[in-house]
Amino acid sequence: MNGPRLGSIESGGTKFVCLVGSAPDRIEDEIRFPTGEPEPTLARAVAFFEEAAVKGPLDAVGIASFGPLELRRSHPGYGRLAATPKPGWSGVDVAGTIAAALRVPVAIDTDVNGAALGEGRWGAARGRGTYVYLTVGTGIGGGAVIGGRVINGLVHTEMGHLSVPRIPGDDFPGSCPFHADCWEGMAGGEAVAARWGRPAEELSGEVLRRALHMEAVYLASGLRDIIYTTAPERIVIGGGMAVLPGLFPLLRAELARSLAGYPGLPEHAADDFVVPAALGPLAGPAGGLVLAERAAEEARHVARDGTARPSADGSGADVPPLAAGTA
Amino acid sequence: MNGPRLGSIESGGTKFVCLVGSAPDRIEDEIRFPTGEPEPTLARAVAFFEEAAVKGPLDAVGIASFGPLELRRSHPGYGRLAATPKPGWSGVDVAGTIAAALRVPVAIDTDVNGAALGEGRWGAARGRGTYVYLTVGTGIGGGAVIGGRVINGLVHTEMGHLSVPRIPGDDFPGSCPFHADCWEGMAGGEAVAARWGRPAEELSGEVLRRALHMEAVYLASGLRDIIYTTAPERIVIGGGMAVLPGLFPLLRAELARSLAGYPGLPEHAADDFVVPAALGPLAGPAGGLVLAERAAEEARHVARDGTARPSADGSGADVPPLAAGTA
Repeated sequence: MNGPRLGSIESGGTKFVCLVGSAPDRIEDEIRFPTGEPEPTLARAVAFFEEAAVKGPLDAVGIASFGPLELRRSHPGYGRLAATPKPGWSGVDVAGTIAAALRVPVAIDTDVNGAALGEGRWGAARGRGTYVYLTVGTGIGGGAVIGGRVINGLVHTEMGHLSVPRIPGDDFPGSCPFHADCWEGMAGGEAVAARWGRPAEELSGEVLRRALHMEAVYLASGLRDIIYTTAPERIVIGGGMAVLPGLFPLLRAELARSLAGYPGLPEHAADDFVVPAALGPLAGPAGGLVLAERAAEEARHVARDGTARPSADGSGADVPPLAAGTA
Repeated sequence: MNGPRLGSIESGGTKFVCLVGSAPDRIEDEIRFPTGEPEPTLARAVAFFEEAAVKGPLDAVGIASFGPLELRRSHPGYGRLAATPKPGWSGVDVAGTIAAALRVPVAIDTDVNGAALGEGRWGAARGRGTYVYLTVGTGIGGGAVIGGRVINGLVHTEMGHLSVPRIPGDDFPGSCPFHADCWEGMAGGEAVAARWGRPAEELSGEVLRRALHMEAVYLASGLRDIIYTTAPERIVIGGGMAVLPGLFPLLRAELARSLAGYPGLPEHAADDFVVPAALGPLAGPAGGLVLAERAAEEARHVARDGTARPSADGSGADVPPLAAGTA
């Protein structure tokens, strides 16, 4: 295989996907298993990569993980899960555990930021430097890439919890345990199922028509906020709700209505502005590969110049990588 | 004077501020005049800098301008005003005119992005890499700096036009000509004056108390959206409405209510998270100095290496500066 030999982990709340390769169409080996207790789950990932390393060294491992994660490199908890409802996982040092066991450079970001990087490199945001990736599934998550770098400021973005004006007459209270009627609480798959009494994919006829229209209005409202705050060149949407038939044309029409001609850019009205994700379930694992590639590149830079260069994921320009082992 | 000798222009819809110096407390010369027709107005700015250049060459000029501006470097209209209600100014090549006349490197960004850079370098966002600057005056504008770079994607940000849920019982229709009840349309100074029948600074007693409370609720709603989309380490607020007495404590309380403990970071609840701007009316001109400094640095880099390096303002990594003359 040409190019680097990279490891990728998509650590989800329900399953782990681990693979070795260099691109979504250059996958050498892959394993999937349910997410259990942290120790045996991470050990299983480590064992997979150790076996892969027998055939030849890995250059780095990238992890696209469920969150919340501490991603400030200057923070003592860097790379660890923060308080998560997933039993046993709060505070677990996912990146550090992998790095210590495999002794290769490791980078970590959220699953949605990983998917954003994957779609940017090989998918529907290819060639765009500033774009947003949204997943609309049970909940809503979004990652913004600005000039090639994921936004990681005080914390990773939490786009699912945007405030949205209620559609007049919609008395659904909302499903978010924190905000009730935030974006995710009104338009995530869980909210839609609760509002209509069954999952979106089981709706039909007039109810489906009404549900799709409401979904388009709520999604457009959040997209408008994202457009005005992050100025993306494109918005890519994945997740289970994104494949509802007929959603995208409705969404584009409602977005145009919500923007109301401001700032009047033809690009916002074009069919290639809000588009479906291209990589499907491979977006996250592909993001792990991008993260691994950047970790390998940064490690080479450190080895050569003795200093960390500005991190490719935007998480800090002047602090060393914490979860980089020695290859 | 040590350090570079820089020119700065804050080109506002009502007045121009031009200065020569290297920092807000190192201003060598300054001029202010009303914004008239484009040609004589820009000629007056040019004349000021030409006179300053007699004492010694300027390294660069930075412009923080009213908008909307075309800021994509690959776009043929780069540096020009887009369609603006200001008579005669639509399409005017502000940056190009200054660069051609003075033959120095010139950089341009919006007034609010300029102010964001100024507050980051010398003001209330000093030391923060990822932050947001908001001006709440007649309207609302916001600039996001991510890892030291202003977001400039498809267009500059337009934070004033976020959607906000209406406060129950508030039947004010909103003052935005595009969206009616967007953030600016409900919480900008013009909206507040229209809602209460007089400008905010003339309100008193119970009306002032109610107006401040509503202002805090609406501002908090937009701040929440900004937090969830751009993850700032700090939010700095300037503009006429920001100096209403007692607004900040109310705003912090309403923001905590709106975030509702999610994601539960103590930083979001701290008094130094949402803070007043520090530079006042000097923020824009200071931003011009930052832009000038970056233009000078980029020109040195081009002169040395023959290639443009990634632009410091995030407006594109691989295209040459368009408005750079030859010093």
